[in-house]
Amino acid sequence: MNGAESLVRTLLASNIDVCFANPGTSEMHFVAALDRVPGMRCVLGLFEGVVTGAADGYGRMADKPAATLLHLGPGLANGIANLHNARKARTPIVNIVGEHASDHLQYESPLRSDVPATAALISDWYRVGAGARIPHDAAEAVTAARSRDGQIATLILPADTAWGPGETPQVASAPPPLVQALPETMARVVQAVKAGKRCGLLVTGRALEEAGLAVLARLQDSGIQLLAQQANRRFARGRGRLVVPRVPFSIDQAVQQLAGLEMLVLAGSHPPAAFFGYPNKPRLQTPPGCEILPLVEPGGDTLHALAWLADELGCPARPAAIPQAAAPTLPATDRLDADTIMQAMAALLPENAILCDESVSSGRSLFKFTDGAAPHDYLQITGGSIGCGLPLATGASVACPDRKVVCFEGDGSGMYTLQALWTQARENLDVLTIILANRSYRILQGELKGVGIDSPGEQARRMLDLSGPSLDWMALARGQGVEAVAVDTVGGFARAFKAACARKGPFLIEARIP
Amino acid sequence: MNGAESLVRTLLASNIDVCFANPGTSEMHFVAALDRVPGMRCVLGLFEGVVTGAADGYGRMADKPAATLLHLGPGLANGIANLHNARKARTPIVNIVGEHASDHLQYESPLRSDVPATAALISDWYRVGAGARIPHDAAEAVTAARSRDGQIATLILPADTAWGPGETPQVASAPPPLVQALPETMARVVQAVKAGKRCGLLVTGRALEEAGLAVLARLQDSGIQLLAQQANRRFARGRGRLVVPRVPFSIDQAVQQLAGLEMLVLAGSHPPAAFFGYPNKPRLQTPPGCEILPLVEPGGDTLHALAWLADELGCPARPAAIPQAAAPTLPATDRLDADTIMQAMAALLPENAILCDESVSSGRSLFKFTDGAAPHDYLQITGGSIGCGLPLATGASVACPDRKVVCFEGDGSGMYTLQALWTQARENLDVLTIILANRSYRILQGELKGVGIDSPGEQARRMLDLSGPSLDWMALARGQGVEAVAVDTVGGFARAFKAACARKGPFLIEARIP
Repeated sequence: MNGAESLVRTLLASNIDVCFANPGTSEMHFVAALDRVPGMRCVLGLFEGVVTGAADGYGRMADKPAATLLHLGPGLANGIANLHNARKARTPIVNIVGEHASDHLQYESPLRSDVPATAALISDWYRVGAGARIPHDAAEAVTAARSRDGQIATLILPADTAWGPGETPQVASAPPPLVQALPETMARVVQAVKAGKRCGLLVTGRALEEAGLAVLARLQDSGIQLLAQQANRRFARGRGRLVVPRVPFSIDQAVQQLAGLEMLVLAGSHPPAAFFGYPNKPRLQTPPGCEILPLVEPGGDTLHALAWLADELGCPARPAAIPQAAAPTLPATDRLDADTIMQAMAALLPENAILCDESVSSGRSLFKFTDGAAPHDYLQITGGSIGCGLPLATGASVACPDRKVVCFEGDGSGMYTLQALWTQARENLDVLTIILANRSYRILQGELKGVGIDSPGEQARRMLDLSGPSLDWMALARGQGVEAVAVDTVGGFARAFKAACARKGPFLIEARIP
Repeated sequence: MNGAESLVRTLLASNIDVCFANPGTSEMHFVAALDRVPGMRCVLGLFEGVVTGAADGYGRMADKPAATLLHLGPGLANGIANLHNARKARTPIVNIVGEHASDHLQYESPLRSDVPATAALISDWYRVGAGARIPHDAAEAVTAARSRDGQIATLILPADTAWGPGETPQVASAPPPLVQALPETMARVVQAVKAGKRCGLLVTGRALEEAGLAVLARLQDSGIQLLAQQANRRFARGRGRLVVPRVPFSIDQAVQQLAGLEMLVLAGSHPPAAFFGYPNKPRLQTPPGCEILPLVEPGGDTLHALAWLADELGCPARPAAIPQAAAPTLPATDRLDADTIMQAMAALLPENAILCDESVSSGRSLFKFTDGAAPHDYLQITGGSIGCGLPLATGASVACPDRKVVCFEGDGSGMYTLQALWTQARENLDVLTIILANRSYRILQGELKGVGIDSPGEQARRMLDLSGPSLDWMALARGQGVEAVAVDTVGGFARAFKAACARKGPFLIEARIP
């Protein structure tokens, strides 16, 4: 048994059985070990952003880490953007990054770079593995990934460590208990609510999954205003589930939503800052004078704190009925635009689907349509680093092969990691991709105004415009083995959507909108 | 005039007039400034790896830096892999990276990350720009990029610095003189050669451009063995030019080539290390006991040192005739494979073309065919980080619009940055892309053996195989507005190549090979 094999056996013994990979020479022993050790499913991505984004989608839905296998510093660097998103989501991931043989690093060679410094950028835990310690290092990496409700752990694997002798595989130990809310802080929250202060409760993470929503439902009549972060790891939504309004992306709308609050309690969330700082706009979305009180730190035990809070506030153990939004219906018009697509999609969404959303500008009002849709899990971009949608859908489908994954993707953002479609084809994943083809960086056309530029000139317009030439997503999908159609009416979209839902396997709809 | 405008004016005044860009909200003022300040050509890339790779190709051919415009930490991160290649090539580049407004960084927001630490990974110079200093910072960045024969300079631009008041634009000062060889070292080299030691001279960089080759030609009969690094920034090749053999990629072949050397003199090059460290193979390619003597450091004044050496060795001021390789002819067979494509391409290459090579495994013997081809500049991957070919060709064409660019690209490596094709279409660049479609990471199939794995199993094979589904490069090109054909015979390839050379604008040939 060599080091690579003892690593693979440690990962398997620690309940990691999926590895998204884009390997190179320095990882060949790991790849070879996969055939000697049964049980690890290895999924190839043709670009590292696909690999790390898929690990994010997998981790969010499987609720356990996938491994990634990346080639040296540049391979890891190509994966940073989606690891950035995953880290903001608190998705557990274990990266295995190959490195030159230890005695080769003294020389300048083409692929030599500072791998530990690269890992440090997006890792909560990282280490350069060493010979006899490899199974221990790997087990610690898995524990780190599972700690604090999800972290990024990166184990750097020098090639000689992979081909050298392997030690006994280890099993990762359980992560330390989550940090809990302090009684003093809880008392302050309870006192404020009871005193009739206008309090908001900003949640994210597990609070928005099925079990968390059940606790939040207890709090719905407690007098505290429930709010979800703008971006969240995973959000259980649709018929039968409590609707928790998200803080909007737009700073103006967010300020309006939070207006009047005297206290904002943070449960696993961060102080609500604007997505960007704009000239002459506030940086924080809370009104001046509003106290921001962290009850549970990010990665802490939110569910425990919420149940405790409900108890303290005397909320019923079983909540009253949850108000239900009307079931969405197909639009009355045949005019295809971002709104009618969302409405049609909401009306046609299969039960228990996973809805991955990287629609950027087009999907801002999505929740209005999907509040009453069939129950589904909603996954979104969490770190603002575009190019996560297609990979996220890919990984979610690997985690949940029996659920339909619908990916709602902008044409600009989709181009960052379009190689994910190939992986969907190779693995025959049940992913339906909808490309919102508006042929522009539409969000930036709005952002120009937001930063005070009202009349952009020709050069500026050209930087935000994706026509000339227009992207043909049917060709881009078919070129990677994914069937596709283009539609430009609501009727055409609805027919394509229903047909795609009636079959298994990857499919893409290019929705041509104004 | 705001800060963004004073920055654009400083770049223009410092002779930077091309900006490869993928902007976001934090860069909108820079984008808007482009319309107020005429003269900057802004080229949009749909992924940052395209942006930075194009800046590399541009810098190599224009012999001056382009600017890039990148969005925050993740945007820069997406550009790292090709900046890694550019840095290894010593290509001058000035990166402008947007950052959150200074007073917004105190808050956790989705896109917040450590931009300076990201910049540090691939920059020789980096700085966070500040209000009144911006034009000075920008001018220093340009000087840094031009220093030491080419560096990566990264200026981080907080949004408030861009929208705040701008100061008087500056002009970059000249870079400091290049470091020259020391007389003592020169004396040692001359003594060794005169004493009949078996000496090699390993060169790279400017030594391989037209002017450098003229100096090397003086040395051809001096008794010192001329050698080029395996990877080089730019290599003037073809009819009428001195043939300087490259050290091969394969460690075994490299060791064989350098066998018998007693001294290896480095002129701007690094000690010749293997590309990867392999079990039971040497790390250095020189024979044991061979002295490695650095005469000029990387980024030093190689041309001066070579001329000086030629003088010291009593070489003629004007070299003897340069031995000429036979002009390549079309292959006699119609069987299309990597060798017959290279031979046909060499026979048909237009005069003064730029040949970008990221053929990875398929192109190892390219030089054998192109030694006697029409004169051309050869650009190659320098940092081993695949995904540089298509962007490199894009940038080279922006730099040299009147020259045909031929890009020789693997299907696996091409997929990393295929979005470059869209930029070629939008800018109507005269680039002919040849995809060597072998449907595998062929190089890794060889590398498996190199690291001692003789019989890979099914999982391992699947990680190196790109069929199932096969990529359809015609569709991938057309989907981005680039015309394309597929060929599977030498005759078909030659016809397509000639037709593509007879027209201007982007075109792609998918060459289906075993």
